[in-house]
Amino acid sequence: MLLRFSLNADLITSADIPDEAVAAIGQAVDEANKSTFQRGVPAEAEPNDIGRIMAWNAAGTALHLEIESGPYTRAHDALFRFRKQLAPVLGRHRIGIRSIEVTAFTVRLEGTIDPAAIPHLPMIRETAADEEGITLTLDVSPTDLENKVPDRLVRLIEEKAEAHAYGGKAEHWELIYESPKQPVQFTDDPTAEMLKRGWIKHGASRGQWIFGPQPVQLFRAFETIVIEEIIRPLGFSEMIFPKLVPWEVWKRSGHAKGVYPEIYYVFTPKTRDPAYWEDVADYYKVTGEVPVEMIRDRLDGPIGGMCYAQCPPFWPFVQGETLANDCLPARVFDRSGTSHRYESGGIHGIERVDEFHRIEVLWLGTADQTVEVADRLHEAYTRVFDELLELEWRCARVTPWFMAQEGLVGVSENESIGTRDYEAILPYSNGWLEFQNVSVNGNKYPKGFNVKIQSGAECWSGCSGIGLERWTAAFLAQKGFDVSKWPERVAKLMGEPEEVFRFL
Amino acid sequence: MLLRFSLNADLITSADIPDEAVAAIGQAVDEANKSTFQRGVPAEAEPNDIGRIMAWNAAGTALHLEIESGPYTRAHDALFRFRKQLAPVLGRHRIGIRSIEVTAFTVRLEGTIDPAAIPHLPMIRETAADEEGITLTLDVSPTDLENKVPDRLVRLIEEKAEAHAYGGKAEHWELIYESPKQPVQFTDDPTAEMLKRGWIKHGASRGQWIFGPQPVQLFRAFETIVIEEIIRPLGFSEMIFPKLVPWEVWKRSGHAKGVYPEIYYVFTPKTRDPAYWEDVADYYKVTGEVPVEMIRDRLDGPIGGMCYAQCPPFWPFVQGETLANDCLPARVFDRSGTSHRYESGGIHGIERVDEFHRIEVLWLGTADQTVEVADRLHEAYTRVFDELLELEWRCARVTPWFMAQEGLVGVSENESIGTRDYEAILPYSNGWLEFQNVSVNGNKYPKGFNVKIQSGAECWSGCSGIGLERWTAAFLAQKGFDVSKWPERVAKLMGEPEEVFRFL
Repeated sequence: MLLRFSLNADLITSADIPDEAVAAIGQAVDEANKSTFQRGVPAEAEPNDIGRIMAWNAAGTALHLEIESGPYTRAHDALFRFRKQLAPVLGRHRIGIRSIEVTAFTVRLEGTIDPAAIPHLPMIRETAADEEGITLTLDVSPTDLENKVPDRLVRLIEEKAEAHAYGGKAEHWELIYESPKQPVQFTDDPTAEMLKRGWIKHGASRGQWIFGPQPVQLFRAFETIVIEEIIRPLGFSEMIFPKLVPWEVWKRSGHAKGVYPEIYYVFTPKTRDPAYWEDVADYYKVTGEVPVEMIRDRLDGPIGGMCYAQCPPFWPFVQGETLANDCLPARVFDRSGTSHRYESGGIHGIERVDEFHRIEVLWLGTADQTVEVADRLHEAYTRVFDELLELEWRCARVTPWFMAQEGLVGVSENESIGTRDYEAILPYSNGWLEFQNVSVNGNKYPKGFNVKIQSGAECWSGCSGIGLERWTAAFLAQKGFDVSKWPERVAKLMGEPEEVFRFL
Repeated sequence: MLLRFSLNADLITSADIPDEAVAAIGQAVDEANKSTFQRGVPAEAEPNDIGRIMAWNAAGTALHLEIESGPYTRAHDALFRFRKQLAPVLGRHRIGIRSIEVTAFTVRLEGTIDPAAIPHLPMIRETAADEEGITLTLDVSPTDLENKVPDRLVRLIEEKAEAHAYGGKAEHWELIYESPKQPVQFTDDPTAEMLKRGWIKHGASRGQWIFGPQPVQLFRAFETIVIEEIIRPLGFSEMIFPKLVPWEVWKRSGHAKGVYPEIYYVFTPKTRDPAYWEDVADYYKVTGEVPVEMIRDRLDGPIGGMCYAQCPPFWPFVQGETLANDCLPARVFDRSGTSHRYESGGIHGIERVDEFHRIEVLWLGTADQTVEVADRLHEAYTRVFDELLELEWRCARVTPWFMAQEGLVGVSENESIGTRDYEAILPYSNGWLEFQNVSVNGNKYPKGFNVKIQSGAECWSGCSGIGLERWTAAFLAQKGFDVSKWPERVAKLMGEPEEVFRFL
């Protein structure tokens, strides 16, 4: 893709630029073009691809600059490098640079682009398309330029072009293990059966269940198996990760790139002064209705959302730290609360819900250590599903979850990085249910949260989400409700189903 | 307090009221005044206190009514009773009652009222005060009248008058137990010490901690004690209560009356169509900032909030049901997630946080059964705190939590209904920390969620919240960090503190 930047800007000075400074400015421009802008540019770059001050003139308190570039030392980078270089030159005349005014900024793109995507992008004032490509006129402040807005914009356009070219291609899915077949013991929908037995009831919010004692016995049986057979033998320690996730975390974890359609958003009161809220309470007391619009106006936010992926809010625990070599691989897990996703509507079983319970397993270390832990986990899971739960299941390499949650498709270029989904057959529908996963996330999180290793080796991390509703749905769909026919270990841990409530 | 209602309304008919119907209407009015409006009125009521049609006339398709009342068969109740009575009378002339138009509605109050409160109340068009009292002109629809808006308004004014009279009185607090003194083993702030040791770190959101392995070992030690010594011996079964609470639940639980200043509010996407959210994601990708205002416009809500009190979202499990006698007292508990409260700002230890972890114990039965379970729980707690944790603590009868959360003060009139707070001394501040409670809530929840008992006995309920952060804060403040000096059982369950992370 051809890429050109063109920038007009005025450097505003603290006093009129005197004639005797003009020659020195000219020298600084020459030096910038010949040397300053060449720094860090690869040897094979064409001269035309590198930032260059094409024209300039000084008038009053404004030094007008016209800068052009291809992809190297881009026009806006050149502007800031030049300001830095010029400051001591003007300083000798007791003149400071007060501010920058951007008077024009255009980006020229030629190549494969998705023309439909462009007009909706932010910061674009005008779009002009021709046969070879497109010219974008941007509305950008100096701060936007410092924050690399043009670069992000170009990268986004490239991403959209790739997605456009990729078109309707399905998600990646590649079988890597298939369990032995298991005899069919049950062919009904376990959610319907649990409802009939009074084991579960719908919660008051959508996609939400209240679990009675019996399914919770099964949840806890699975939890015990996970802890005794997988988590403890592999050396994981329990932590408690927060369950309210502010933007700050999702910006670093990458979720802020694409998770918006599925978040349960959280707002906070502008103040907790009871007087501020008295008329809201009064309105409710008088009308019996909660005044949602009145409340909306008194809230700050959204400040973030309810837990979506379980591991991102762990990362501030290690953010900005350098990990000692000998504490690696660090292995932890969390089972301290709910996850919430705004799923597609309609009635679902316990296997597709808005509110769910998951044991999240997380580890950090060198690349080798991280891959090694993932492999050991996979072996332990395989043993548990084949020997203790006697499930019919399979495992596939899929689009990494962190790519999917950023709206990306395909797989990582690095073979070691990626997600394995574990799927179980549901005899009642003959469909496969993803009931958990294991991921090696590469350096994504350590980079996002600035975590380093003492040795200087790149820090990687992995995670594995064990969905208790999903395990239960898969197990009951295959094994049914006759506990005497269940695999021994599960039956023993489950015990006699506890009947607490009896309704007339 | 003197209370009078005065209502003018037109019953709009489907056709002109014929002259030959007028006599029958007159008869219906007489019957209403003499008999219909007398039903359910206590014998000692003054005639003037009871609803009465003072004047009426029929013109075209409107039957104009003027109704007055004191507190019995209030004017608006009289209106609906009369409509019901009149329908068959007009039916004989093939005329139906199409609708009601309220043309005037005033309420007269005399007595102790808080005049400052009145003008801010909803549904009031005009307020006229004189020496004896106040006359309110209301803006109400027939639906408002059917929903008993005037009655709720009067009750609210009475409540405010009581609160005004009650003034700055302190919350109720009455000592009922004091433990033996314990030797002082530690005098520092345990939160500061945990921070220093790297056991905890601040989460990214306010009032939120990330707990490392060591404090979680202590949380789980306490959880094991609670389950083995209290919950299981007393016959409680584990359930999973939802953690996102919609208004529907808080309306029935009473929290909608006053909990607004402290809620973490929840909103949902208007749609989960990715195309609807694409420009939000694009904005973030280009600017690196989350466009909070753009998001705000695309959300529905608030639909409710994050878990505040832990037991209300249980109740839809039994809502509308009649419980068999022989399943009572029904005893359950939940430890499946976090609670969230928007607490006052500033830096706090783990004992005062916005996000916390609690084991919630809940039981239902007859009044006797409910009180009995609360007493057994109190005994079990006493043994655990005195013998196993060796805490210095006390127990006090306080304003019931459900009253406090509705903005009320004082205690219930029924001695058996109320909250016991458990407080531990914090040697570092010499202050007392409420670390858990036990409440008998009377018929409040069964009534709100329409739960009955087979025998016809009134259904009561109780609950007890065991705060893991609070137990930990109290225990560490008194016992310090030298595990060898801890009570044996806790030390054994805690084990060797697990050092997972080491930072350079």
